[in-house]
Amino acid sequence: MQLFYLSGISLPDLFATGNTLTEMPGEESVHISRVLRMKPGDELKVTDGKGAIALATVENPDMKGCTIRLRELSVKERRPFSLHIAVAPTKNIARFEWFLEKATEFGIDRITPVFCDHSERQKLRTDRLEKIVIAAMKQSFNCFLPVISEPVEFDKLMETGTDHGNRFIAWVDEKPRPHLKDACKRGTDTLILIGPEGDFSKREITLALSRGFRPVSLGSNTLRTETAALASCFIVNLLNEPG
Amino acid sequence: MQLFYLSGISLPDLFATGNTLTEMPGEESVHISRVLRMKPGDELKVTDGKGAIALATVENPDMKGCTIRLRELSVKERRPFSLHIAVAPTKNIARFEWFLEKATEFGIDRITPVFCDHSERQKLRTDRLEKIVIAAMKQSFNCFLPVISEPVEFDKLMETGTDHGNRFIAWVDEKPRPHLKDACKRGTDTLILIGPEGDFSKREITLALSRGFRPVSLGSNTLRTETAALASCFIVNLLNEPG
Repeated sequence: MQLFYLSGISLPDLFATGNTLTEMPGEESVHISRVLRMKPGDELKVTDGKGAIALATVENPDMKGCTIRLRELSVKERRPFSLHIAVAPTKNIARFEWFLEKATEFGIDRITPVFCDHSERQKLRTDRLEKIVIAAMKQSFNCFLPVISEPVEFDKLMETGTDHGNRFIAWVDEKPRPHLKDACKRGTDTLILIGPEGDFSKREITLALSRGFRPVSLGSNTLRTETAALASCFIVNLLNEPG
Repeated sequence: MQLFYLSGISLPDLFATGNTLTEMPGEESVHISRVLRMKPGDELKVTDGKGAIALATVENPDMKGCTIRLRELSVKERRPFSLHIAVAPTKNIARFEWFLEKATEFGIDRITPVFCDHSERQKLRTDRLEKIVIAAMKQSFNCFLPVISEPVEFDKLMETGTDHGNRFIAWVDEKPRPHLKDACKRGTDTLILIGPEGDFSKREITLALSRGFRPVSLGSNTLRTETAALASCFIVNLLNEPG
């Protein structure tokens, strides 16, 4: 059964009001009625992107605003840690979009695009990125929608983004550093910095270290920006797997 | 310094003969002379894709066959385990190519495209895939070129591909299964089966289990075919990281 996204609401709140008849947003309505040609009574699942999924049935498959009846509600608890990756958008945006899709499949709470000294890309439209994480969330039946923060300058992030228990920065370096899998503590809010194709500048690295970011390695191979970002996302998720 | 690929030779053998003057293949010659406009005496690195990297200098930057002089040889030992992933090529081939690039960056020894009962794609050209792993190997300064086996039918693979210490199959299932990170033994040759978008058929799963493949989980989220393949590649590499 397909999963749809109800933006800007809380499913538990809707159920609390008792009014379980609701209207799907425009794009989803078109998808339900025109693409899938769903009929009244057909079943679907909807999520609010905040951990709740509801089983629902189509009431009126209107392309302009498909109404559905919410039935069973199931709420998933948020993970006991949050993962925030601040990464420089790649020159080829498809690589960054690919990272967003995969990170959403694996599990991530916040992505902050960062513009660095060596960033070739200094502009980014986040509306298209939103669509990608929503599609990935629905496709992977993950009911938590990652937040894509507004892009920030590296120095600005250094002033604000330092409220995490685990703060790490990874860059390409010969010097041996602890592997993220050993340095990162299970069940702790984590922020990881990944640099652009040209990597972080010495100035940025010094600034980050002075802000309490710890240098980590992601393994022996040289990884592209988007691969390094995904690797760090994957490592933190794996660390927090039960068992 | 850029890394180039010398196919079909062994750098240690070349050094053994004492004849260190060699010619680069066509595409690499064009890249050296026309794209990078390298001049005699310019330095570059070459790998044979078998673990050896040589520092070299351009002798004659000829587009039709650039000759280089091999200087220092450094040989990297093969890892104490081999990783073989047999995966159904995705309907959208870009997703499969993306997996090849990332798996090469992380480290993989062999990829076997498998055609399954539910595969929408039943044809595959491997020449283009070769180019992708070569580019990824050079880009990540990894000196081992993964082998892309000829595509096989699932049942054929079951007759041949069972000579691995660790044999696993991952599919989407509600039943709890051990996580690959716990089931896979460090330092052991490993083969992992990943199914198509429609997943493995019950028949294929039964056949694999009868051949000694163990069912594993890759985590709680539903992953796309290419994401599951990359996740398993990543988990085995992480397991084998020192420390």
